Order: sequence, then structure tokens, then C-alpha cells
Amino acid sequence: MERAYGFDEVALVPGDVTINPDQVNTDFVVGNHTFSIPILASAMDAIVDPAFAIELSKLGGLAVLNLEGIHTRYERPGEVLDQITGAPEREVTSLLQRIYSEPIKEKLIGQRISVIKQAGAICAVSMTPANTKRLAPIAKDAGIDILVVQSTVTTARHISKSYRGLILPELCQQMSLPIIVGNCCTYDSALELMRAGIDGVLVGVGPGAACTTREVIGVGVPQVTATLACAAARETYLNESGKYVSVITDGGIRTGGDLCKAFASGADAVMIGSPLAQATEAPGRGYHWGMSHPHPTLPRGTRVRVGTTAPLEQILLGPTSVTDGTQNLAGALRTGMGVCSARNIKEMHNVKMVIAPSIKTEGKHFQAIQNVP
Amino acid sequence: MERAYGFDEVALVPGDVTINPDQVNTDFVVGNHTFSIPILASAMDAIVDPAFAIELSKLGGLAVLNLEGIHTRYERPGEVLDQITGAPEREVTSLLQRIYSEPIKEKLIGQRISVIKQAGAICAVSMTPANTKRLAPIAKDAGIDILVVQSTVTTARHISKSYRGLILPELCQQMSLPIIVGNCCTYDSALELMRAGIDGVLVGVGPGAACTTREVIGVGVPQVTATLACAAARETYLNESGKYVSVITDGGIRTGGDLCKAFASGADAVMIGSPLAQATEAPGRGYHWGMSHPHPTLPRGTRVRVGTTAPLEQILLGPTSVTDGTQNLAGALRTGMGVCSARNIKEMHNVKMVIAPSIKTEGKHFQAIQNVP
Amino acid sequence: MERAYGFDEVALVPGDVTINPDQVNTDFVVGNHTFSIPILASAMDAIVDPAFAIELSKLGGLAVLNLEGIHTRYERPGEVLDQITGAPEREVTSLLQRIYSEPIKEKLIGQRISVIKQAGAICAVSMTPANTKRLAPIAKDAGIDILVVQSTVTTARHISKSYRGLILPELCQQMSLPIIVGNCCTYDSALELMRAGIDGVLVGVGPGAACTTREVIGVGVPQVTATLACAAARETYLNESGKYVSVITDGGIRTGGDLCKAFASGADAVMIGSPLAQATEAPGRGYHWGMSHPHPTLPRGTRVRVGTTAPLEQILLGPTSVTDGTQNLAGALRTGMGVCSARNIKEMHNVKMVIAPSIKTEGKHFQAIQNVP
Amino acid sequence: MERAYGFDEVALVPGDVTINPDQVNTDFVVGNHTFSIPILASAMDAIVDPAFAIELSKLGGLAVLNLEGIHTRYERPGEVLDQITGAPEREVTSLLQRIYSEPIKEKLIGQRISVIKQAGAICAVSMTPANTKRLAPIAKDAGIDILVVQSTVTTARHISKSYRGLILPELCQQMSLPIIVGNCCTYDSALELMRAGIDGVLVGVGPGAACTTREVIGVGVPQVTATLACAAARETYLNESGKYVSVITDGGIRTGGDLCKAFASGADAVMIGSPLAQATEAPGRGYHWGMSHPHPTLPRGTRVRVGTTAPLEQILLGPTSVTDGTQNLAGALRTGMGVCSARNIKEMHNVKMVIAPSIKTEGKHFQAIQNVP
Repeated sequence: MERAYGFDEVALVPGDVTINPDQVNTDFVVGNHTFSIPILASAMDAIVDPAFAIELSKLGGLAVLNLEGIHTRYERPGEVLDQITGAPEREVTSLLQRIYSEPIKEKLIGQRISVIKQAGAICAVSMTPANTKRLAPIAKDAGIDILVVQSTVTTARHISKSYRGLILPELCQQMSLPIIVGNCCTYDSALELMRAGIDGVLVGVGPGAACTTREVIGVGVPQVTATLACAAARETYLNESGKYVSVITDGGIRTGGDLCKAFASGADAVMIGSPLAQATEAPGRGYHWGMSHPHPTLPRGTRVRVGTTAPLEQILLGPTSVTDGTQNLAGALRTGMGVCSARNIKEMHNVKMVIAPSIKTEGKHFQAIQNVP
Repeated sequence: MERAYGFDEVALVPGDVTINPDQVNTDFVVGNHTFSIPILASAMDAIVDPAFAIELSKLGGLAVLNLEGIHTRYERPGEVLDQITGAPEREVTSLLQRIYSEPIKEKLIGQRISVIKQAGAICAVSMTPANTKRLAPIAKDAGIDILVVQSTVTTARHISKSYRGLILPELCQQMSLPIIVGNCCTYDSALELMRAGIDGVLVGVGPGAACTTREVIGVGVPQVTATLACAAARETYLNESGKYVSVITDGGIRTGGDLCKAFASGADAVMIGSPLAQATEAPGRGYHWGMSHPHPTLPRGTRVRVGTTAPLEQILLGPTSVTDGTQNLAGALRTGMGVCSARNIKEMHNVKMVIAPSIKTEGKHFQAIQNVP
Repeated sequence: MERAYGFDEVALVPGDVTINPDQVNTDFVVGNHTFSIPILASAMDAIVDPAFAIELSKLGGLAVLNLEGIHTRYERPGEVLDQITGAPEREVTSLLQRIYSEPIKEKLIGQRISVIKQAGAICAVSMTPANTKRLAPIAKDAGIDILVVQSTVTTARHISKSYRGLILPELCQQMSLPIIVGNCCTYDSALELMRAGIDGVLVGVGPGAACTTREVIGVGVPQVTATLACAAARETYLNESGKYVSVITDGGIRTGGDLCKAFASGADAVMIGSPLAQATEAPGRGYHWGMSHPHPTLPRGTRVRVGTTAPLEQILLGPTSVTDGTQNLAGALRTGMGVCSARNIKEMHNVKMVIAPSIKTEGKHFQAIQNVP
Repeated sequence: MERAYGFDEVALVPGDVTINPDQVNTDFVVGNHTFSIPILASAMDAIVDPAFAIELSKLGGLAVLNLEGIHTRYERPGEVLDQITGAPEREVTSLLQRIYSEPIKEKLIGQRISVIKQAGAICAVSMTPANTKRLAPIAKDAGIDILVVQSTVTTARHISKSYRGLILPELCQQMSLPIIVGNCCTYDSALELMRAGIDGVLVGVGPGAACTTREVIGVGVPQVTATLACAAARETYLNESGKYVSVITDGGIRTGGDLCKAFASGADAVMIGSPLAQATEAPGRGYHWGMSHPHPTLPRGTRVRVGTTAPLEQILLGPTSVTDGTQNLAGALRTGMGVCSARNIKEMHNVKMVIAPSIKTEGKHFQAIQNVP
């Protein structure tokens, strides 16, 4: 058995040259789209609605709208959100199970996408593999720019009795737009997905703040190790094909420190949930829940109270007076890159990390000191 | 000294193929009995009484009735259970010591077994090595299907002044029904037990929720390492004899995640206590205590309040709205197997694990986030 | 840097043969004295006074009376103990500093020793290296059986301006009774002490419950590693000289589990403090403090409230209804030895250990389960 | 990835010879200044004002006055300190941001330095690299003895659009007084700084009690590993140049134990903050905050309540009745050196350390014991 590492177990090592934060470039490219902030908003109902997607696109990032969430199941998602955020703790899972059993309305798909496109924003949407053959053409017709196919674990091969598995090479050919697939967390599965012709992989099984996959089925690979493995697959595939497939670390990022470590592990971009659920613009109204939470027989998640702390712009670009790493995430990335001698994301991939468990290891006398009268 | 690992220190790695949960097979075979759910209920008074054994057999699993517990010491075990669950915390150990010093009534053995058999259920019973020569023939005559010989640590050889150690090969010959022996936790001791002619070994010293063996005598091997070792002995013995002896991980399993990891470590089945003690049907009425707890001079255990959370069927087969991994255990196993590319238990033995300590490593900002106003 | 291990980080592995506890031998021999219980009581004022020494000798163990404590500084130690146990938390260190600055009265040394000897008990006393030349002859004349020379760290060589270091070979020759010296924690220092002609080494720097040496000066080696190292020195010295010097693990033992691990690490006996401070007979009246605590300029200790839980006999020999490992310590040792196939202490030295951090690793869902309504 | 270690993860191993504390020499030399206590006070406004610098110089240590703090921004720093220490928790960061945006007054630089020099104290001051070209000549003219150039991470090379990086060799030539630069934490960056001609490096990125750099940008190397690396650079540079550059461990030292470990890791001196912020003489009035805390867009710090516990002399030289390692730091160093066979700081560099995580590993039953009635 090999040891796998998460964000809290590593730290970045400063480089031999320091670079002013205004001299670093954080561009992320997928297809012919360039994003100045390499941050994607998770395809979760508590985070992304059309208005949020428009705002994030303006700021330079990319939001992914979940096409299997409440926005395509309900005409008036606001009422549904009221129910979810108002439910007592003990009833929330069964409520979510009920709410997400409402059928997806195909006509709502077009409506939601139109709102985003008409505002001039780049539009990305997500769907699960089982529904992709049905929903992807509708989404394409409605004008999406980027397609995300996502479930807890998605592989290039699937064994099922009830439906023919999604054939990714076929999908790529039919859609002719950038396709991002996930989640995966190993070298082999990432490489196999890349060979299917996709443009990006989402990395991360189990790490999300609102996810209990590891408790429920024991599955999960911590994000530093998972990102390193998938980034290695990217280099292998680049060598064999000449094509650069983006690695996007998804889940478990809560602070600027986590974010910097994801890039140092090999990420080209990150997908984040709970930090953005704290934005004034987030539809979750201070709450956050994951995509596996409403599963009808084996739910895997919790509703997390994250609070509403600041406008999205401040969370991403600052300035801030918060010192715990949850605001000015892009500024933190720039500062971290500068300290680590990285002028761009590519150079950030080569930054040295050390295994240095727990932020608080050296701070444990802190409490004792505070208690001095 | 080698490092040994427990469930909380490892995680399962997803495979390269995903399998729909309805396409996996979880059968467990012992002797000529096949169980669709590879779960045994611990031979503990808080979990198994005849009614519970009948119910679990119907659902596809196997309960083990403790022949040295209150059901064979008392005509009316209900009254005794009332005393135990009603006792104040500080008095419970001495009460248990008193209750379990009542002699075993041989006639009750037959009565309890009859109830189970008359309901058409498969009947397994347990006894300690010291009492096996006396009790095993009685149990056999009463019609048991499977015999379990169990103590904290059971070996093929025992040194004692006061009684001649149990000779397992003799027992196997006399009984001519499947015999499961435990507990053990090393390659050598498991192999020696297998060579004695038994059909299954119980793996696990020290890990149970209600067990304090590690505090009291310092002994214990965490379950992942223990199961890997005993599974290796199974392969050795299979090669030398052609006989497949089941490895049953017993103790320390509290969630679906733990359960999946036991199988990935090499278990053919698991024996669980505290998760089943939460069933409506469990005789412990929301409490749980272990077999070493009533020891007259060196008790090793605690009475744990587990609560009564759901009917046994829901705990084993779901569906559930609980998201912490304590319900729909069989569904969790199927989902975990599907995600890890395992079509059956044999393939689950080959699933890759990583060392990834503590479920909560990546979730520690979670609390901070929750506290945001 | 090598990794060092403490009791909480290892566990004992059961053996291939189980032995009934009544078939194991736990004798400890020093000089021509044989103790049926291989347990020494720490030379601390909260634990050993003459009456306690007599009682422990009767039970088969050995108490060490501190000749530099309150029993030789004060005619009526009872009054002093009242002050210490009655002092508020914040004032206790300065009170101890004041109390222990009272000069040692040579005449009291003889009186205290007489009481012990007249009761027919074996009498061991301790003193620091700096005072040994003065106090040892007095103690010898008063009839002690065993001399203990002890400070935080004692080496065979000492550099000082103010006094000539204690020359151990000279002391051994002059005293002609068994001499135990400590504390040490490495192979080299233990070997050098053994070569000086002594009969036992005390192993342990920093681990005691009431000791803050590691916080104050950063020094300490966890007890499993320290004991293994000193036991290796014992074997080296046995090979080169033919003399068997006892290794006595001192400090950090709080449960039967810790005790069993000390022997598996190579100890011939253990010296324990806080478990015995809980005895009805302990002079500390439910409190415990260490020998470095009253240091006039750099105190290293805390006063620990341990409570009074049971008579000494029950703590050592049981039976007990306590299940956390703090009572029936000798019974725990016998049971642990039996489970680990060790018929005597020598065989216990060969028991396999695994690195298995934290007793509670596999028990962390325990709390969650308990909170279920 | 290599494992990096902090103070709490290691322990010092006693040596084979013990030395009386009064026989050890703790001198620290920089330029032609010799300090009997190898302790520098951090260049933080909560710790060093001119009066504190004078007092510490008298006691044998060295205080560094921050030339970019409130003492050079405000005529009457006392009023500003009142505001900071009186502010509610939630408003303190934005208040600090406002306070530290006030321009530095060049005339105050001279005034503050004069006060220190006129008292006959050795005067050290700090500035950031960006301001060094402007402020260093002023400070030199005012009569400083030692110049400290310090930021979170300072390297010999810096890439910036807005200003030409500080050229250290030029600075060294112009100033012709001892120059200490930091912070750094790797072999390469320390060696490059040494080759620039400086006299000391400050080691430590991220460890300070009031610092949140690791949360905000993920950067940091624990202090034991960082000090070992920079000490190795010192030896390399000594071999190639014949010049001995001091290694000063800065940050994360809260107790005498941490302090001893810093020297054993290779430090010639240490720079400490929170322990000195507890002094009666500290301007922070029982509070402590770091240099990155007031950053206008990405603040990295917390205001820590440390309390006022004792006069500076007692904190450094004792005697004390405090047993948690926060007082009599020089005494703790002497005692630690004596126990580890080190007669001077050079010999302390060779003391053996073991990896022994967490002071409290062996003390976890402590709480349980305390709860006994």
C-alpha cells in the first residue's frame, strides 16, 4: 500500500527567486476559451444558478450549471431552495431525496442556458453519464460552450445491464465542443479517459466538504496524490498524442493554501464548492450540499452551513480583511506563485512540496498561551 | 516493528471500469450454505437472540447465538436485559460480572436452538474453547448448522494446568458440520487453525467498539493488517490443501466504508456488532456490550449506548436517508464494489488501497466554515 | 533522525500458543531478592511512605522511598502533605519549591528506614547523584537492602565545577548491595552505566504523567524505543561480562496495556507512579507530583489529580470491575503474557509488536454512535 | 516529497556525559558583538519598542526594532497600541490595515534609534527589501549596529516590474555593518543569500503563532527541517569561503523545549515573538500580531492574546514557578545543553534528535485519570 496525501498534509517550499504577484500569469485554457482565473464553480445547486454563472464569467472564471439539479427540475427553483435551507437538520436528506426525484424538464434546459448565453457569458453545463445521450444534444442546441460529464466516479468503460454505457469517443465526435469528464483519481483511469478524446478531467473522489463517500463506501484518494497521478497521465498522453488535456482538481479546496497546493500538485485549474457557496450571489443562501446527497437509496453527503461572507468578487479577487485563507483566492494564488518562483501555472507544477502534516502542529501551545490571564 | 493499519487509515481506490451495483455478486459460502449478504451478526447478547437470528437468516445473512450468554443462563432473558440496560454507568460492569456468573443451563441450549430451526432459519451458535467439549455435542443434537468456537484469542495449541486443551481436528471429525474458529490476527496462527481442519477463521483482536482489550492488556492488531495476514494464510493453505477456508473479519466495522475495506483486505465475510445493535430487532434495546466485559477478575469492555435507529432490513438493505454510512450496508458494499471494478468478493480482494489516514483530514476547515455567522 | 515510539503507538501481537494466566511466571530478581510482582513504586512523595513500602513488599513488589523528599525533610510529613494537596492550582509549584528547600535531616533517614525494616519488608531508597556520597553510607548503616541513585538524567560521567562527580564503581564497591541507577534512555549511556558495576538501570526520560521535561527542555525518548535500546545494552553487557543487569522501565505506564508493552520492549521490571498514586494507601491523597517539580529555578512538573480509587492490593492483583486497564495490573500482565505465548518475562521480551498508533483509531465512530437518540 | 519536521515532532536525546548548567557557554557572536543570551526579539510592534530594546540588551540578548511599524509611522505609538489592543476581535484586521497604511516618517527613524543608542544598548533595526534602499542609509546615519532586512520570504533575486530588486552585495558594501536577511527555509536559498555577503540568515516561513501564511498561500517549511537545511548551507559556505554566517531560527518557538530543539537543529541563535510578548515590558500589553497581518489585500495573521505573565528578566533568566516551559528560557537552554552533553552552541548542533510526535502521546490517559472522583 502506498501513502496518499491530502492538502493538510503538505506544504509548499519557497523558491530561490521571488516574483511580484503582479508579474505572474494564471491563465487557464480549455478549447478556445481562456480564463484569467483558473477556478471553476462546482456544478452544485447551492452554488451555480444562471445569475451566478454570468457573474463568475465576468470575473474571469467558469461556472458549471448542473443540468440534473433543481434548475431543470423546477420552474421556480427559489421556492425549492427555501425548503432546503429551511428544513431541520434531521429531515434534510429525505427532503433532498424527494426534491431530486422530480423529473428533469427538457424545456427548462434550454431556458436556463439561454439566460447565461444572452448575458454574453461562457456557458458550461454538467450531466451524469447515464443521462448524457439524452441531455447533451439538447444542451448543445441551446448553445453551451463546454460540456461536463460528471458522477462520483466516471470511467471510460462501464458495465451495466439496464443501459448501454456512454461511449466517450462517440460523444466527443458528436458534440464538437470541449468536453470535461470526471471524477477520476488514478493514473490509469485518467489516461484511459484522455485517450477517449476528451479535453479535461476532473480529479477528486471523496474529498468535498459536503461529501461522505469515504464513510459510506470507503472509497477516496486524497487530492494531492490524486492530482499528481492524473497530471502524470496528462504528460504521458501529451507525449503519445501531442494533445494537452487539462487536469482540474475538484473538491476539498477550502482555502487559498489548498488552492495553491492543488496547482503545485499538477492542476491546470480547480473546481471549488464550499468557498463559493459563501458568496452573496450563491443560490444556497449560506448552505451547501453535494451531488451524491440526494441519492434515493444510498445518500452520501451532508448539508453544510457555510454562511454568507462576502460578494463573489471579494472572495475571488479581494481585497479582504479575513485572514483564514477563504477570501482573495486569486490573490493568494498569485502571492503563492510569486513566493515559489512560478511565473505561470506550468511553472507552478514544478514547485517543491514537503510532507508537513497539519497546519496546527507548531501552533498547539497557542491555546495555552491564550489562556494566560 | 512493522506498521499495522486499521480501517480509518486506508481508503479504496476506484477501478478503471465502473460496474452497476445490480451487476455485482456478494455471495458468501460456508459448507453447503450460501448467504447472499456476507454479514454475520456477532455472538453477543445485545445483538442476537433467536428472533433476531430468524430475521437475519430471512434477509440473507447469518446470526450467531452465544451459547454462554444470558439466553442459556436464564429462562427469561428479557428481565436480565432490563437490568443491564437500566443500570447506572458506574455499576454496569459489576452487574454484568454477577449476571454472567450464573451457570449455563444445558436444557436451555436445546430450547433456543429449536426456536431458530423451527422457523426454517440457518442456525449458528458460539461457545468458548474451554466449554466446547461439553456444549458442542448438545448443540449438535439440537440441530445447529454451523458451530463457532470463539474467545478473545484462540489458537490451535493451548497450555493449561486445569483442563486439556481443545483438540480441533478431533472436534471437526466429531461434529461433521462447518466449524468457524477465532479470534486470530496473524498469518501463522490462522494457518495453524486452518490446518486443524476448520472451515472459517474469525479475524480480529481488540478492535470492537465495546472492547478495551488494548487498554487492559496491550494486545491487538488493527483490522486491515490482520485481515491481509489471515487472507494470505488462506491462499497458502488453499495451495497446499486445495481447501478454501473462509476469512471473516470480526470487529471494528461501524460503517459501509469499514465494511468495504474489510473485503478489500481479503475478507470473505464480516462479523459485525454495534451496527446491528442499532436495529429495532436487537435485544440490547439500544445498548451494546462485549463478550470480555463480564470477565470476573479482568473485565475488558464498556457498555456502549448505540441507540435504536431502524429495522434490521433497512440497516442491511436500505433504502436510507442516513448519510454517515451506518445504514444500507449491503447497498454500500455493492456500490463500493461497482466503483472499484469488482464483480464479486474474490475480485474485491484485489482492489487497490492507499494509506490515507483519517476521514476528516481534508474536512478540518469544515467546522470553521460552519461557524461563520 | 530515527523514529521513536511510545506505548500508545504500538500494540502486542498474539502468539501461536495460548497459555492460561495461572501458568505464567512473572518473577523479577535483583541481587538475592526475588519479587513475584515485577513492579516498583516510584520514589515520589505522593506514592511511597514507610507504610506503603511495607504493604507493597507484602504483596510481592518493591517500593522505593525518596530520601530527599518530605519524609526526610520534615518530622511530620502529614502536615506538609496537607498543605500540598490543599493548595490552589496556581500556587502549588511555588509551595513545592518552598517545601523542598527545607534541609534533609540525616537522623530522619535512619528513622524512616527502620520503620520499614522492622516490619520485615525489603527496603529500597533513592537519592540524587549529588547527594549520594553523603547519604548512601547513612542509608546503608540504617539497613537498606537496595540503593537507587536517580535524577532526570544520570550518566556514568558528569562535568561539574562545584563538586566531584559521583564515581559509580567506587560506590558499588563501598556499598556491596544491589544498586539501581537512572534515568537513562539510550544504548550507549545504559551500557556505560552497566559497565560501572551497577545491578539495574531505570529507563525513561520525560514520559511521566506529572513530568513536563519535554516542554521545558525538549528532552525525552518515548518509552518503547528507550526500553528496546537499553535492553539491547543489557544483552551486549551480558555477552561481554556474563552479568545480567536489570532493565526497569520507569514512567509513562498508566494501564495494564502500557505495562505489558514495557515488558515486550525488554523490561525486567517496571517502576510506576500515577497508577499507584490512586491507591487508598498512597500518601498523596489522590494527588501526584514528580521529582523535578520542586526545582528552585526551572521546575518541570505538574500536580496531577489522580483520585483515590481502590486499595493497593486491588490495583495490583484484582479482582476489579474497572475496565480501563488501571486495576489488576499483575492480572493484566499474566493475561497479556498468556495471549502472547510468553511463559515468563524472558519470553515476553520476544513478543512481536506492531506499530499501531492510538488506541482510539478504530473507535472514532463510537462517539457518533453514542449520540444517536 | 520529503517529510519535514516541526518542533513538536522531535525530541532531544540525552548524551553520555551530563554537564552542570553553570558549565555551558551560550554565547552568540555577530560581527564584533557577543551576546551571552542567543535570543533575538522579533521585529514586531507588540514586542519591541526602544525601551524594550534597551532592557533586552542589558540582559544579554538583542531586540530588533521594526522600522516599518507604528514607532516610525506615529509620533505617539502608545495611542495606536491602545486602539489595537482595545479593538473587538472581528475588527482588528481592518484596523491594522488602516493603521499600517500611514506613511513612515523618516525623522522618527532617527529619534527611535537615538533613544536606544543613548542608553548604551546595541541597536538592531529591520526593514523590508522594497524599502531598504531608502531607509537603510537613514538608519545607518542614526547609528544602528546591526541591520535586518526581512519579509515573509526574501531571496537574493527578485523579479518585479515596479522597482529594481534590492542588490544585497551592494548593500553589504555600502553599509559596512553586520546584515541579517530573511526569512528563508531551504538550503539553496540560504546559500545564495550567504554568497551575497551577509552575516546572518533568519530561518522560518509560516511557523509563527500569529501567522496564517500556511492557510492563506499554502507555503511553509516546519522549523526543524528548515533549520537543518540552512545550517547545512552554512557549513557549505564556510568550506567554500571561510566565513561563518549565523543561522537564526525565527518563529514557532514558544517554550524552552522548542528553543533547545532549534539549537540542536543547527541554530546559532533564535528570534522569538510570542514568549517575549508576555513580558511586562512588551508594548503589546498582552497581545501579539505579526508583520504580514496588516497586508492591505491579503492579510496573513491573527491577533493573539498572550497575556502579561512576568518581567522580561524572569522570562529569560528565571527563576520561575511556571512549569510549562515559557519562563527561564536561558536556564532551560543551559539545562538542556547539560543533559545533552553540549558545552557550547557548536556542540549543541551535534546533539541527537529522534522523531517523537506530540508531547502528549504518552499523556493521554492523564485526562481520564484526572476525572476519577
